[in-house]
Amino acid sequence: MSLSFTEKWNQAISKNNSLVCVGLDTDPAQLPASVRAKADPVLYFNQQIIDATCDLVCCYKPNFAFYNALGASGFATLKRTLDYIPEDIPVLIDAKVGDMGNVAAQYARAFYEVLGCDALTVNPYMGHDCVAPFTAYQDRTTFLVCLTSNPGADDFEKQLMGNRPLYERVIAKAHEWNAANNIGLVFGATQPEHLAHFRSLAPDIPLLIPGVGAQGGSIELAVKNGCDARGAGILINSSRGILYASQDSDFAAAARQATLTLRDAINAHRP
Amino acid sequence: MSLSFTEKWNQAISKNNSLVCVGLDTDPAQLPASVRAKADPVLYFNQQIIDATCDLVCCYKPNFAFYNALGASGFATLKRTLDYIPEDIPVLIDAKVGDMGNVAAQYARAFYEVLGCDALTVNPYMGHDCVAPFTAYQDRTTFLVCLTSNPGADDFEKQLMGNRPLYERVIAKAHEWNAANNIGLVFGATQPEHLAHFRSLAPDIPLLIPGVGAQGGSIELAVKNGCDARGAGILINSSRGILYASQDSDFAAAARQATLTLRDAINAHRP
Repeated sequence: MSLSFTEKWNQAISKNNSLVCVGLDTDPAQLPASVRAKADPVLYFNQQIIDATCDLVCCYKPNFAFYNALGASGFATLKRTLDYIPEDIPVLIDAKVGDMGNVAAQYARAFYEVLGCDALTVNPYMGHDCVAPFTAYQDRTTFLVCLTSNPGADDFEKQLMGNRPLYERVIAKAHEWNAANNIGLVFGATQPEHLAHFRSLAPDIPLLIPGVGAQGGSIELAVKNGCDARGAGILINSSRGILYASQDSDFAAAARQATLTLRDAINAHRP
Repeated sequence: MSLSFTEKWNQAISKNNSLVCVGLDTDPAQLPASVRAKADPVLYFNQQIIDATCDLVCCYKPNFAFYNALGASGFATLKRTLDYIPEDIPVLIDAKVGDMGNVAAQYARAFYEVLGCDALTVNPYMGHDCVAPFTAYQDRTTFLVCLTSNPGADDFEKQLMGNRPLYERVIAKAHEWNAANNIGLVFGATQPEHLAHFRSLAPDIPLLIPGVGAQGGSIELAVKNGCDARGAGILINSSRGILYASQDSDFAAAARQATLTLRDAINAHRP
């Protein structure tokens, strides 16, 4: 029987002693010239990155947008990338989808069945019946977008709804909808003070934490404030900082070194 | 020079005397047996529906989820569907995407350049910098999800943020971000009392109104409360009610009849 996201993820955390998630947000415009000459440059690049990092990570996170931008071949490139990732490393697709129940069921089928990923990001704005078709896949984990690392988080997410910000209502609803214990949350690393409060509200919920690389969030605060009581429970994502550590033909070695550096920087702060 | 969404849409409203938008949410499981035998059943079905309805509508709206659920061939089927739609009918892709600026730019490229649609739905939850990469395409219209027709609208959208519901803050932000006059909003037909208030807040913003078919919203109230001062300014979407008006080999004729009936029901209430 295949493992759930949670099982795979915790095993990878232990085996690789790592909370690093590598974001496979592969942009053809950023690839080294030697890679651009390949038949499927994005797939080739992803394979090299996976080979170079798969003993150092606890998850891979391709962002769906980058594969759509490839046009008709993008879905197949994404599928082949997933097929290439070793069985024991879970895959979280970052798509931030959210739609009516009958539509959400189609997305759930596309991501959890056709692509066969272990976890997915979902936008909670439209409410419970738009989230339920994803959480119905009990062995997968559905990460709800909660508080993001960009400036626009001020427009709605941090605005008070009653006596607490909207994103805290998302946390409360995540608890309410979490009967199968398969909901996670997305929480930007640029919000470390909110992260500490978050963990006090949700001691057991898995957290996807983007924003430590190009966006400048503090690794120390993300780890100290975000980890659960076991010193785990978080995925710290880096995309550009790893993929484009070198834009020359040594990109894979440079990606490995960047992943190693990030893994060790994270581990230095784990309790 | 090609026309903007707004120009194409207004010309189609006049030419076809119609506010009907047909939702191309084509589900292979719902297709007649005669269609399922075709090489690309979804494309064939869409072509028949388009042939049967293109003189009766002001827009087509494929929902991206249904094409993703087709797997690797879905993007090409969607692209061929768009290529088949007559030049003078605009296409709005319903994808409800929303992500960080650099990611949103990839989605904008995928939808507005690679697929070449005229308009797109976007989820506003993450704020201004996640919407800007879409509105940067000034000749396209970006429809922000505002108040939806499903029960989950109570979870966040209708909750008070300060002294007004979250969805009204989305309306206020839509105004603020609308320098290029190319933002629309999605507003469910099952919320007619909110719709009247909405139109008083936003007299000129285009409205995509789903929810009159399977979901039971009132056509009369959607039209009376939603139309702008010219008796236009809205797209009333129907998907299942038109696509599956008959599940037999006469599906195209039945779809035409259902579109005609909806068009006339809408026009009966236009000022």
